[in-house]
Amino acid sequence: MHTMTTKQALNLEIQHLRSLYLSAALTPAQLVEQLDAAIGNDDPGHIWIRRLSKAEMFVYAKRLESLNPADLPLYGIPFAIKDNIDLAGFPTTAACPEFAYTPEKSATVVQQLIDAGAIPVGKTNLDQFATGLVGTRSPYGACQNSFDSEYISGGSSAGSAVSVAKGFASFSLGTDTAGSGRVPAAFNNLVGHKPTCGLVSTHGVIPACRTLDCVSIFALTASNAKIVLSVAQGYDEADAFSRKLPISPESKTKTTFTFGVPQANQLVYFDNPETPGLFDEAITQLEAIGGTRVEIDFSGFLETARLLYEGPWVAERYAAIREFFEAKPEALFPVTRQIIGGATKFSAADTFAALYRLKDLQRSNAPIWKTLDFIVTPTAGTIYTIAELAAEPVKCNSNLGYYTNFMNLLDLAAIAVPTGFQKNGLPFGITLCAPAFSDEQLLNLASQLEVAAIQQGKRTLGATGIAQQIDKS
Amino acid sequence: MHTMTTKQALNLEIQHLRSLYLSAALTPAQLVEQLDAAIGNDDPGHIWIRRLSKAEMFVYAKRLESLNPADLPLYGIPFAIKDNIDLAGFPTTAACPEFAYTPEKSATVVQQLIDAGAIPVGKTNLDQFATGLVGTRSPYGACQNSFDSEYISGGSSAGSAVSVAKGFASFSLGTDTAGSGRVPAAFNNLVGHKPTCGLVSTHGVIPACRTLDCVSIFALTASNAKIVLSVAQGYDEADAFSRKLPISPESKTKTTFTFGVPQANQLVYFDNPETPGLFDEAITQLEAIGGTRVEIDFSGFLETARLLYEGPWVAERYAAIREFFEAKPEALFPVTRQIIGGATKFSAADTFAALYRLKDLQRSNAPIWKTLDFIVTPTAGTIYTIAELAAEPVKCNSNLGYYTNFMNLLDLAAIAVPTGFQKNGLPFGITLCAPAFSDEQLLNLASQLEVAAIQQGKRTLGATGIAQQIDKS
Repeated sequence: MHTMTTKQALNLEIQHLRSLYLSAALTPAQLVEQLDAAIGNDDPGHIWIRRLSKAEMFVYAKRLESLNPADLPLYGIPFAIKDNIDLAGFPTTAACPEFAYTPEKSATVVQQLIDAGAIPVGKTNLDQFATGLVGTRSPYGACQNSFDSEYISGGSSAGSAVSVAKGFASFSLGTDTAGSGRVPAAFNNLVGHKPTCGLVSTHGVIPACRTLDCVSIFALTASNAKIVLSVAQGYDEADAFSRKLPISPESKTKTTFTFGVPQANQLVYFDNPETPGLFDEAITQLEAIGGTRVEIDFSGFLETARLLYEGPWVAERYAAIREFFEAKPEALFPVTRQIIGGATKFSAADTFAALYRLKDLQRSNAPIWKTLDFIVTPTAGTIYTIAELAAEPVKCNSNLGYYTNFMNLLDLAAIAVPTGFQKNGLPFGITLCAPAFSDEQLLNLASQLEVAAIQQGKRTLGATGIAQQIDKS
Repeated sequence: MHTMTTKQALNLEIQHLRSLYLSAALTPAQLVEQLDAAIGNDDPGHIWIRRLSKAEMFVYAKRLESLNPADLPLYGIPFAIKDNIDLAGFPTTAACPEFAYTPEKSATVVQQLIDAGAIPVGKTNLDQFATGLVGTRSPYGACQNSFDSEYISGGSSAGSAVSVAKGFASFSLGTDTAGSGRVPAAFNNLVGHKPTCGLVSTHGVIPACRTLDCVSIFALTASNAKIVLSVAQGYDEADAFSRKLPISPESKTKTTFTFGVPQANQLVYFDNPETPGLFDEAITQLEAIGGTRVEIDFSGFLETARLLYEGPWVAERYAAIREFFEAKPEALFPVTRQIIGGATKFSAADTFAALYRLKDLQRSNAPIWKTLDFIVTPTAGTIYTIAELAAEPVKCNSNLGYYTNFMNLLDLAAIAVPTGFQKNGLPFGITLCAPAFSDEQLLNLASQLEVAAIQQGKRTLGATGIAQQIDKS
């Protein structure tokens, strides 16, 4: 059943809202009023674990009344928060009700966004403990795709993606350990930025794999993601994995660039008849904005992806909730319990052996970057219905990580961008990746691609049907 | 029984040999002849696992005949190699005869030294699989201290230290994971440089804990160690843990500096009545060359040391020899088998939990370096006889690591320097440590300390009784 959102959806694109605030055509309180009405009281798509009430959102809006929109980059901008990230005073569940706690302080990144004027809208549904790429592994219900309720949203940052796609938030925070910030972006016509690990603080975020976790950003456009990142990033003493941005990273907009594409036999689409053509089309779009395509051997990346999937990193998920898991295993969603419980088969020696193998793969994969600005792949080779997923939950999930699992292990930054649609209306997207701290460069490239699409009238905002205006500011 | 080497010992100080070669007063072949005679055919101190014969050394000496000493920084300089480091064509045993193999190629660092003109003298005895700080855990016999055969040599790089102290090599290679390159230096009146991890290639070295291993240098003086390091260091593509030296590390000789000293209750000497006074005297020496002492809280370093000792890193030792260990456990030295076998109690989740704790400790210990040039501690709080060690092998070993175990976990560089003698003639030394890539700065500081000692007539070369001349070159 195709459930395209009607034209009444709000246009929450950040520059659009900002111009309304700057011209006093809108106040944060009015926005909250409109947003509360637009979201409504029911949640058939299982987006929210805890949506903020109008009154709760008003608290944040009121605080802005005495402040100048020109001073705050996210003044009055509504955002959603994956429910493994703390928002002070609201429960954090990680989609496991018995695990829930109510933090006194917000996560560092949430506080930075609020301090910049952003208004939290709600805590979103996810694959429990951020374990999955599907959005169905939650006792709060399977999160539905924003374009077609029979399809999966993608995950684990399921509700965070769908809330933005539906026009319920201008942007949202996800987390991304193995693809959770990219797959749902592709499935909901969004930009999904997976920053360099350590660039955005993970303090106040329930860990999945602490050595690989990062907070990710879902946005309607790359230029919106760039605005959010500029506020969200920053070294945090409280996060031992936080890293300082090196001085003078390359950040200029390039007019020509070279990008790698896996050789044909390494591009896998899991029998989807349409996605190969959509990927080719996306490559053409990249060439049209100045890109030169180079075929690369992708095997080292794929081997790294398998290392994550088959290796001991799952024990990080176990370590993160060990006491809880051992005390109340029945409190976990069945498939999540099965996956995380599998960690006990790995020994310390297995772990170090895998870390050595990873170090070797990092070393052997590194030279490829000498000649490439980025590598491009489909974000996911296909998409599944909720019913297909239920029939083969582990295999389908694994297929969705084919192009995503290696990124954090290899210390890459990535950005998922929408580039087209299947005939059934479901979106398709590609991911650009490059070494750590290439974030700004990747966002600029994604922006160039987006401007070209807008000029051709091909770019819409999430699932709202609203067409993106070219920002002339 | 005090076994001070007689005055017939060769003076193998590098600058001394070099001046003989440059003035044609000595040839490498003559040196080999003299050295072979000086070492002799028996090995009562259990220094060697495989000493090169005169004929085998001649091969390296002959190769130099057509070359100019001025072109090769280590022309004709004899060196010893810990027997967990490959020398092409000679067995590598790691002090476990059944584990032995004969490599076709030398370890990268060995090849670099040979290419610079150095002559290998032999493969040295060690605590089996570099597991220990004592020098007695070897089926090849307990390595004896170069000053008194009743005392331990320290380990694990036991024979490497003693061979240099006895005047059988100008310098030697050890390895240092938890103190193996520093404790034997202190016990044999040598400089022991534990470089920043990754600065010297570990390719061709049997791993102990691959994430923490480094190749170390024993030398008669700090200025000798500096010459050796300049040849030994360098990025190696073949070693996944190799690191590139950052551009422009601080390296100038400082005329004033600030150093941290653990507060009194954190300085532990294990009931040795003399070492507290010797440490105070060393502090006075540092103050005399321009140092300002600052008392620091050392607890974070001590907690890190315990993390290594009690934590899952022992599983790296297990992972390194897993197949061999599982196939032939009886081939291991009993205490080594017991220690490495203990690794199986650690799970993957334990490992990640310890890695997180380490990350936190790295973070919390880092600010101390904002105000300090280095931290100074005793290298070891005491020294034991071989009999004392045999009575309490694990406890004594653990005591010797009190000041050394944390260094590689915290990514520090360190240099052990001799600063005095106990009344019984056994040497005492201190260790200076500072963050990664401070190697040159530390070597310069150690050199300043050494020059002051030489001027006061207090510096002798190892256990040879030869007094160091101030290098005027």
